[in-house]
Amino acid sequence: MSELRQNLATKEWVIIASERAKRPKEFVKKEEKKIIPEFVAKCPFCPGNEAMTPPLTFSIKDENGWRVRVIPNKFSALSPDVKNNKSYLSGLLRHMPGFGYHEVIIETPKHNLTTALLDLSYVKDIIISYRERYLELSKDERIHLIIIFKNHGMAAGTSIEHPHSQLVATPIVPAHIRSRIEEAMRYYDDHQRCVFCQMIEDEIKNKERIVLENESFVVFVPYAAFSPFHLWLLPKRHHPQFSNIKDKEIEDMACILKDVLTKLYIGLSDPDFNYIIRSSPLDFGRGDYFHWYLSIVPRVSKAAGFELGSGMFINTSLPEESAKFLREVKIT
Amino acid sequence: MSELRQNLATKEWVIIASERAKRPKEFVKKEEKKIIPEFVAKCPFCPGNEAMTPPLTFSIKDENGWRVRVIPNKFSALSPDVKNNKSYLSGLLRHMPGFGYHEVIIETPKHNLTTALLDLSYVKDIIISYRERYLELSKDERIHLIIIFKNHGMAAGTSIEHPHSQLVATPIVPAHIRSRIEEAMRYYDDHQRCVFCQMIEDEIKNKERIVLENESFVVFVPYAAFSPFHLWLLPKRHHPQFSNIKDKEIEDMACILKDVLTKLYIGLSDPDFNYIIRSSPLDFGRGDYFHWYLSIVPRVSKAAGFELGSGMFINTSLPEESAKFLREVKIT
Repeated sequence: MSELRQNLATKEWVIIASERAKRPKEFVKKEEKKIIPEFVAKCPFCPGNEAMTPPLTFSIKDENGWRVRVIPNKFSALSPDVKNNKSYLSGLLRHMPGFGYHEVIIETPKHNLTTALLDLSYVKDIIISYRERYLELSKDERIHLIIIFKNHGMAAGTSIEHPHSQLVATPIVPAHIRSRIEEAMRYYDDHQRCVFCQMIEDEIKNKERIVLENESFVVFVPYAAFSPFHLWLLPKRHHPQFSNIKDKEIEDMACILKDVLTKLYIGLSDPDFNYIIRSSPLDFGRGDYFHWYLSIVPRVSKAAGFELGSGMFINTSLPEESAKFLREVKIT
Repeated sequence: MSELRQNLATKEWVIIASERAKRPKEFVKKEEKKIIPEFVAKCPFCPGNEAMTPPLTFSIKDENGWRVRVIPNKFSALSPDVKNNKSYLSGLLRHMPGFGYHEVIIETPKHNLTTALLDLSYVKDIIISYRERYLELSKDERIHLIIIFKNHGMAAGTSIEHPHSQLVATPIVPAHIRSRIEEAMRYYDDHQRCVFCQMIEDEIKNKERIVLENESFVVFVPYAAFSPFHLWLLPKRHHPQFSNIKDKEIEDMACILKDVLTKLYIGLSDPDFNYIIRSSPLDFGRGDYFHWYLSIVPRVSKAAGFELGSGMFINTSLPEESAKFLREVKIT
């Protein structure tokens, strides 16, 4: 019998289709692994090709050269050069110029790595870069939301092989984000507590869906995970803004992020995935009710018409079983 | 320069990325066409294999046998055999048994057809079947929402080649649907008019985004289309429920649906696509503010981390250009 489950933080329902549920092993990527070289002469992100990209906005270097580079996206969806960030309405048509920021975080000089294979110090530098750019762009008062995300693999929507993540800063707050904030607010009103803090406490006590935990973070498969091996990585310390992350937390986050992605890399054979940092919109005040986190979505299933039409997902795996599978993947 | 556009009916923003916009021709499917036989011996939907599927719930026949068959989905996400449709809450975990209906509409006995290639009389029979099942399942008061959708092609999430669509009837209204209804309601409160009726009137007057029109329906690329060639097919007569469609309207809908899918089939070389009938939840009263429609989503681009994280899409095509391209595709 299948089951409907609701995520109390987002109020989104999901169908856990146990009737058609697959064993974790069935989600292992079947494609043969491509051999990718460490350096590709025409890759704009490879060392020596820096002139092929726009000038950098941030970088971390060591004696051998750059470790992480942040640059504006050459094919930017939004641009800071647009001076006007007002919206215009004529009849039912509302539009505004494409003001905003769209940056690329090049995660390593090596073309053929992925987070699971990176040295821990690189993962730390990547998160430091995220924080730096987030803090810097937050200063622009025309920006309302900053989204940091990574697309790994074709199924996750990337067209560039070289390891990178992206940052988009928008002048508006999308409806989807607003409604999630409202749900968190409602929970706070009813319980005088952040729903995410409560969830962390409950999941750690329950253990069943936990994949990893350290001093500052916990990773679990949400009770109402919307797709197989969907994961939430949450800081234990409440804060609505990712940019508030402390140095010690960056170290802990680097460890746990590398470890969980290594578990996916080994357990599911380098699946395509997205991860997204969900942080509060910038103009939402103190935000006792919202809690930033990182969501990982391995792209091992496809959204079809039902998902497009209902905004509700059919998950053909059991969250508890996925968590157990990942807990048992040995990474050392 | 890119542009942000908002759909006033859904309040969803989209980034129209003109900087990286592609010409309509660039979305034409490149894969070579597979030769598919008219009959496949082991296909459960092919004639003669009726015993491989659960007993039918509806069918349309002629002197040669069945034309359209509706059956419960063998790997059903929800099941009517579950008697209990209450939800349970323990701590932050809300769940309910997987009560509901999940049916498959087999659209033709021929294995290798698609809506664009079907005889018009079949398209009509398919819509009649949708209405029949919608009406029948609406009688079950435990059902709150009925979603009818079609997945065509692998990228659209189908695993079965034989032409079919699906119906899922759920015991809950997903958050995504509720917020769309609320937005429509707000527009109605402000303007004493259905936002969709207003949009139809404006789009017909404006012409730029119209693809097809007949006495009862209009098809256009929404001003804030979330992906390339995203299309809305709207009935001109206001009604919140698809099931209210009249016989004459079914004829007109069959014509315009076949024509627009033929334009996609010819213009983009049989792209994978989803379509979804968006109808009001069953318990939303008179619904002067909501208007049913059919949304078509050709799967010619991929949702990546940004879309997952923001619920906002980057569309790399210009709606006006897509509409012009489709208007010019000759279908006779």
